[in-house]
Amino acid sequence: MKIAFVRGPEAHRMPAEGAFIEALKKLGEYADIPVKGDIDPAELAAIIREYDVLLTMWGNIAIPAELAADNGRLKYICNITGSLKAWIPPEIIASDKIVVTNWGDLPANCVAEGAFALLLAMLKSLPAYVRRVQRGGWEPNEDQARKLGSLNGLRLGMYGMGVIGRRFIEMCQPFRPKIYIYDPYVKELPEGCIRVDSLEALFTVSQALSVHAGLSDETYRSITAPLLAKLPDNAVIVNTARGGIFDQDALFAELESGRLRAGLDVLDEERNDRLPTEHPARQWENCLFTAHSVSNDSWGREADTYHGAMHERALENVTRFANGEPVKYIMEMDRYLKST
Amino acid sequence: MKIAFVRGPEAHRMPAEGAFIEALKKLGEYADIPVKGDIDPAELAAIIREYDVLLTMWGNIAIPAELAADNGRLKYICNITGSLKAWIPPEIIASDKIVVTNWGDLPANCVAEGAFALLLAMLKSLPAYVRRVQRGGWEPNEDQARKLGSLNGLRLGMYGMGVIGRRFIEMCQPFRPKIYIYDPYVKELPEGCIRVDSLEALFTVSQALSVHAGLSDETYRSITAPLLAKLPDNAVIVNTARGGIFDQDALFAELESGRLRAGLDVLDEERNDRLPTEHPARQWENCLFTAHSVSNDSWGREADTYHGAMHERALENVTRFANGEPVKYIMEMDRYLKST
Repeated sequence: MKIAFVRGPEAHRMPAEGAFIEALKKLGEYADIPVKGDIDPAELAAIIREYDVLLTMWGNIAIPAELAADNGRLKYICNITGSLKAWIPPEIIASDKIVVTNWGDLPANCVAEGAFALLLAMLKSLPAYVRRVQRGGWEPNEDQARKLGSLNGLRLGMYGMGVIGRRFIEMCQPFRPKIYIYDPYVKELPEGCIRVDSLEALFTVSQALSVHAGLSDETYRSITAPLLAKLPDNAVIVNTARGGIFDQDALFAELESGRLRAGLDVLDEERNDRLPTEHPARQWENCLFTAHSVSNDSWGREADTYHGAMHERALENVTRFANGEPVKYIMEMDRYLKST
Repeated sequence: MKIAFVRGPEAHRMPAEGAFIEALKKLGEYADIPVKGDIDPAELAAIIREYDVLLTMWGNIAIPAELAADNGRLKYICNITGSLKAWIPPEIIASDKIVVTNWGDLPANCVAEGAFALLLAMLKSLPAYVRRVQRGGWEPNEDQARKLGSLNGLRLGMYGMGVIGRRFIEMCQPFRPKIYIYDPYVKELPEGCIRVDSLEALFTVSQALSVHAGLSDETYRSITAPLLAKLPDNAVIVNTARGGIFDQDALFAELESGRLRAGLDVLDEERNDRLPTEHPARQWENCLFTAHSVSNDSWGREADTYHGAMHERALENVTRFANGEPVKYIMEMDRYLKST
């Protein structure tokens, strides 16, 4: 078996040596092939056709679509990380000659935990405590105290329920919220969860709402002013998915007025997923911005387990492929189209 | 059956009418007896001896210890709320003529949830995000990012495990920490939890630590500088129990230096359970102070269910007593001595 990694100019996060590479070399003949960023796709396709397995990951060079029809030896693309739309074209996903996998539910735990941290922090108005204590105050006044909530019995809406959403639900359950889910692509919901059939219905029923959908044509700016208006006063919004799922101007209007509360790990990608330095939202007590890093889980780990786990998954799949066993976490077209 | 409430000058939180009082009147002859704060104990005891059941709650007038030996008709004291040490003396708890109950595990859920919110907020350094974004910053720098943690695999210590601690563990479990417990009074631990035999051992093993012990002679200022020194850098401390369990000066020394992180719902009661207006700790980014209110869960409830639940529990017990059935949540001496 011949395994390749095609090292384009942005591929600095793929190791050139170490335990992962050594393990690959035990599975087959492994080649790390440097290529220029402007390599001709036909030339690149010709290189790749000589290998059975192609590894891809963050910052990968674009894989030529023509491999879909004319794949040579190539039968398996193992994407070590999650997102792959930027370098693997839909033609290859659709091809029945090449199977593509990614890291599956690997980061689900830490993203779900980040979303949960934001949900509880906003239900309990923790940012308002920080600012009040900072400026010499102490306990919440009666108005502020009336906004302090609990997950117990709360009507919690989820927009989207993939692998991250499922972990999020597991984390929520001992806190006993009533969970309402809008996800037209999911056939079976976890026990005790209630399906709703439209975003309108979801925003009508929810007191808090967490977004776990991918960014796609369908979800792009799908959370609009009329939907937000359906939420009750002081409802909590959590977004650890993608900022572009919201009409951000509409969301910010509701936050500026103080009517809603939000814990936002992500913002509109078309505005660089961040706030300008002077943006007034930085002073709003009903908001918590965590700069796309709330899912970071590096403290207190003995080793870099996150990256280690990602490599273990890739090795497990390449081993399965080598042994003629079915690989895991196959990227099917419907998941590809819904993914970010 | 004759039921009484002895209404002292601080008893404004006991309803004089409404559904609870109506329900009591269906169970027996109910008397709401106003007394002065300086009533002679012998006189008060003589009044109480005329009733089978005495209700007590927050702000109650002190119940005379002499009832323990000479109880008259009195056989049951139903304390509607939790704490009762301030008005029910140990002689009455020890008496085999009078049974005393309280609300049992009623507030366990919201206190456990408050502790959990503080734990996650500090593991993810949320107060530092609030302040950084407020002053124009955005993502954490490398040092700040290295402090962002996850409960997944974290060594989480618990000092004390009563009804609140048990709920806290249920909430933690889907997040997969390793839980270490120090509680010499608990015979059986929940599945998967690890017992340690001393505070020294607890502070040596823990990366985060939540206090769920009552304040007693034994726990008073039992968390000392040498114990805190055993925790690793950036360890997280959560206290939703009582401030007096810590040597607060020792704790604040570790927080001022920035070595530890803490989410504190309570502070030293001998210093009024709060920070003075000008205290520098108000500006420390590694601290979150929630002014004894993080367990508040009033938002989004259709009615005042917390108080409703407390009255339901009292009614259930008075009904059981009236029917000759055993009452629930009996305050035994060991629990009384350990309670706050």
